[in-house]
Amino acid sequence: MSVTAAKGFEAAGVSAGIRPSGKPDVALVRSVVPAVGGAMWTQNRVQAAPVVVSRAHLGVAEPQAVVVNAGVANAATGSAGEDDARTTAADVAERLGLRPEEVVVLSTGVIGPRLPMKELEAGVAAAVAALSPDGGSDASEAILTTDAGPKTAVSAGAGFKVGGMAKGAGMIHPRLATMLAVVTTDYPLATGQAASLLRPAVDASFNRISVDGDCSTNDAVVILANGASGIERDASTDARFAEALHEVCAELARQIVADGEGATVVLEIDVAGAASDDEARAIALRIATSPLVKTAAFGRDPNWGRVLAAAGSAPWKGGFARLDPERLRVSFDGMDVFTSGAPTGAVPVLGGPACRIALELGLGSGAAGYLASDLSVDYVRLNAEYTT
Amino acid sequence: MSVTAAKGFEAAGVSAGIRPSGKPDVALVRSVVPAVGGAMWTQNRVQAAPVVVSRAHLGVAEPQAVVVNAGVANAATGSAGEDDARTTAADVAERLGLRPEEVVVLSTGVIGPRLPMKELEAGVAAAVAALSPDGGSDASEAILTTDAGPKTAVSAGAGFKVGGMAKGAGMIHPRLATMLAVVTTDYPLATGQAASLLRPAVDASFNRISVDGDCSTNDAVVILANGASGIERDASTDARFAEALHEVCAELARQIVADGEGATVVLEIDVAGAASDDEARAIALRIATSPLVKTAAFGRDPNWGRVLAAAGSAPWKGGFARLDPERLRVSFDGMDVFTSGAPTGAVPVLGGPACRIALELGLGSGAAGYLASDLSVDYVRLNAEYTT
Repeated sequence: MSVTAAKGFEAAGVSAGIRPSGKPDVALVRSVVPAVGGAMWTQNRVQAAPVVVSRAHLGVAEPQAVVVNAGVANAATGSAGEDDARTTAADVAERLGLRPEEVVVLSTGVIGPRLPMKELEAGVAAAVAALSPDGGSDASEAILTTDAGPKTAVSAGAGFKVGGMAKGAGMIHPRLATMLAVVTTDYPLATGQAASLLRPAVDASFNRISVDGDCSTNDAVVILANGASGIERDASTDARFAEALHEVCAELARQIVADGEGATVVLEIDVAGAASDDEARAIALRIATSPLVKTAAFGRDPNWGRVLAAAGSAPWKGGFARLDPERLRVSFDGMDVFTSGAPTGAVPVLGGPACRIALELGLGSGAAGYLASDLSVDYVRLNAEYTT
Repeated sequence: MSVTAAKGFEAAGVSAGIRPSGKPDVALVRSVVPAVGGAMWTQNRVQAAPVVVSRAHLGVAEPQAVVVNAGVANAATGSAGEDDARTTAADVAERLGLRPEEVVVLSTGVIGPRLPMKELEAGVAAAVAALSPDGGSDASEAILTTDAGPKTAVSAGAGFKVGGMAKGAGMIHPRLATMLAVVTTDYPLATGQAASLLRPAVDASFNRISVDGDCSTNDAVVILANGASGIERDASTDARFAEALHEVCAELARQIVADGEGATVVLEIDVAGAASDDEARAIALRIATSPLVKTAAFGRDPNWGRVLAAAGSAPWKGGFARLDPERLRVSFDGMDVFTSGAPTGAVPVLGGPACRIALELGLGSGAAGYLASDLSVDYVRLNAEYTT
């Protein structure tokens, strides 16, 4: 299903030989009727060529198609790389009867090398020929790099659907970049509405996960909305759409964490009672990215000492987020391990595929959550062993 | 040598049975003539009891002795833990003819449990009995936890010496905390001068190292200056003293990184040409704490793509530190790998015990350096395997 769950979308995924493994590496998604859309891009100061080019395209046109290649990130490739991204957009546009600015180009893979344009062009031709209302599954396979498997999600409202596909967060293989997600819907969004609804959904999902804390040069989330459901919008359907969009983004984000490099457990970190939402988020992020918390999780150690040390040193406004150990309550999977400045003596047994670490700070109403993977021996192996 | 390199200091290190291994675990350092001193403490919002108590002591008296125990951090132990720290200070003071406020108490080890006060008291008695001008080496052994070996450094000026001992950064063993350093000198510092000179020295050394990015509940650096050298101060000797203090702190910091958990290589990260010193530091820290950069270093992979991605996402003022890939130059061990927005194609061979990663941003005159260890399979093993 994935990006073709909603009406009026076609997709395809083909093997173009860009990935050395021969696995599918070119995905194409298009709306068969005029769509509106929006995107959120990596905030990294080093932005890949497709990010630069696609951001410019969205500035002047509504996106009608998204082309993704895996294997080469087209990042750190200078103006030549931007030319390659523009060439690809023009190629897709010509074959689909669109303007180049209506095509979003995304890339994921090795940082540094140029795109193999001959292979990519052949891949685009094959993908256009393969476009189908049943192609969502193929497309979701063709955007992967070292992901263990595809990530897809679908949510439905009264008369409409939201579907999406994503690939893994973190820079999994040496010089491999990127978290990518493409979401489609047949809900009738107004121009400009897509981007404004996408922001809070991404902020509550993809921006609340951490595999290794690295924000890549290529990260992107794109949404296309074509109204093909034919339903009428009102405040109530708008609210349900926003909810469905959140669900799809949250589910894709969870799948990305569960498939994090070497991940053996998903940590659900919930911080409540902070002096402000910003501080809650800073604390949750600090715990989610602490190598010590993450290695303890790998060892199935309910190590609240490391959680405390991380929570107490969450960067905020040039210092650390406010926290008073005397008011703090920490629990693992619902069992209190630290209250009122001292350990309870309880030792939770951690065995499941997920572990919830909850902190109640007792300072205010600030709250935030994060999903994180653990830090395993396999993570280090995956990221240390390589062939240039 | 270590903390007894300078005149007028005695030290001892004894086994009190606090560490299960039976290794030395109580260290004592004292000046035999009146000293002045200062300290810098962890900024973590969760502060161990000895930090709370010793900070208060330094607020009302000049430190004449430092007692350190390894094995139990006396952290997250509430007011009972503070009572234990005060009891220890009073015990040392009584045995040495000092006021309790003149004693600094430091602890490192497991977070959560109370100190075994009976063993500690016996250890203090034994350490007092063993105090000797030759005890620096014994003391440097008795502050270790899972460190591979002691860290000591000495520097000399005309007629005076500065000596120090330290233990490892990072929270090496599950629930084990702390970077600790004790520095002594026979240079005749004025009251208040110790603290003001310590700050820049610590900022340029201990605050520029990263093993795992975690700031513990117990981190502390203490200096005692007793003037026993008998030399006269002037602006020139003051400058040489500041230099010697920097040297001792820098050397201890380097030893801590080289002995980082599972470390196989020391990364020297130098950032220059940034828009500001703050941004240079943010970028250097981001690279120093990136799991992807650190696993690549473990794999001896000159992975400039990960360095770029980390540098481009260095948190600064709610966004990222300024960086323009077109002006950026990145080198590994002096070999340029990325210039003017594109890779050079050079592939440095990384084999030595250290690797220098230099970035020239071409934006201004901001500069900063960081020392970091790599992230190895052994780091994860050390931090995941445990006995509660």
